[in-house]
Amino acid sequence: MPQGQPTTVPDDGLTTRARRNLPVLAVHTGPGKGKSTAAFGMALRAWNQGFDIGVFQFVKSAKWKVGEEAAFRRLGALHTEHGVGGPVEWHKMGAGWSWARKQGTEQDHAAAAADGWAEIKRRLAAERHDFYVLDEFTYPLKWGWIPVDEVIEVLTARPGTQHVVITGRDAPAALIEAADLVTEMTKIKHPMDAGRKGQKGIEW
Amino acid sequence: MPQGQPTTVPDDGLTTRARRNLPVLAVHTGPGKGKSTAAFGMALRAWNQGFDIGVFQFVKSAKWKVGEEAAFRRLGALHTEHGVGGPVEWHKMGAGWSWARKQGTEQDHAAAAADGWAEIKRRLAAERHDFYVLDEFTYPLKWGWIPVDEVIEVLTARPGTQHVVITGRDAPAALIEAADLVTEMTKIKHPMDAGRKGQKGIEW
Repeated sequence: MPQGQPTTVPDDGLTTRARRNLPVLAVHTGPGKGKSTAAFGMALRAWNQGFDIGVFQFVKSAKWKVGEEAAFRRLGALHTEHGVGGPVEWHKMGAGWSWARKQGTEQDHAAAAADGWAEIKRRLAAERHDFYVLDEFTYPLKWGWIPVDEVIEVLTARPGTQHVVITGRDAPAALIEAADLVTEMTKIKHPMDAGRKGQKGIEW
Repeated sequence: MPQGQPTTVPDDGLTTRARRNLPVLAVHTGPGKGKSTAAFGMALRAWNQGFDIGVFQFVKSAKWKVGEEAAFRRLGALHTEHGVGGPVEWHKMGAGWSWARKQGTEQDHAAAAADGWAEIKRRLAAERHDFYVLDEFTYPLKWGWIPVDEVIEVLTARPGTQHVVITGRDAPAALIEAADLVTEMTKIKHPMDAGRKGQKGIEW
């Protein structure tokens, strides 16, 4: 990839150094693979810089993302035990949906997702982490479980230099508008189209 | 994301278990961010499963991907020292392009890229790794430095269950045709559009 060079210099009164330290709000959306995977790849890079990483998952499943969680717990332990990289926290927020939806009512899940968001709000206010992954966060927004307006307001006004990456399909237009970096992942071809199931080391 | 279920069951005589172990050829292409980042995220998951990881970079730069390399070297050391995860090798193939192109002739770079590919061919034949990342590999293909036909032939006929992920813009049609999983990353919005430069923990 050619080295990126800004095409314009903004009239924001900031030095290049100050602009470099602006916190990034990134959104990975679209129907293709790689939205969460790329977010975890970014977190890996941030970890390597010694950033404090907070991962907040809004979808639970028995299997998916377990590999990432295990790897990041190892990385967090490297920090704790050897001072390498940054600390890592990994939280499952809300009661999820999908299979989990079979247990409990929709009201339960909505309340649990709202609780999860309330915790993230507290952490953003306290500048608890340097780098947040809000994984599959677009779904509770889509379902009206968490108010989009409030999310935009909180994210836009977040203090310090906290980076936030949000993943999930169908990101609301207002979130895309508020974000600095938005990538859409589009499926061109998937093994499941050919009748293949997910597999170890690839899907989890 | 809802759990994926194949929509068809292929008439290939394989059991579900056998089909699960089919090696995957994945391509991350398109003009957006996240192509390499998602590949490294996949490699992280594969590492966690104990897979032997080989990363081969076809673009050199002073700064980019250094974070990923450092993090994966840590993960590889975890394997070596504590038997956790899988082993990791990280190689820079060819003389790169971009800035590096200023030194040496184009012929030098083409020859170096071809040497890199020759090494990957040897490793695939020897089933040296379980999971390969051929990072920015589409560029030497695009420039005719490495023959696309031969790449397709070698990848299609590779023995065992070696997974391969190829990243880069403008993936050749024949490669997309041969791949099992193809995702296009599309840029919706990028901080550089607003005059912001790359920053620590985000771009590297």
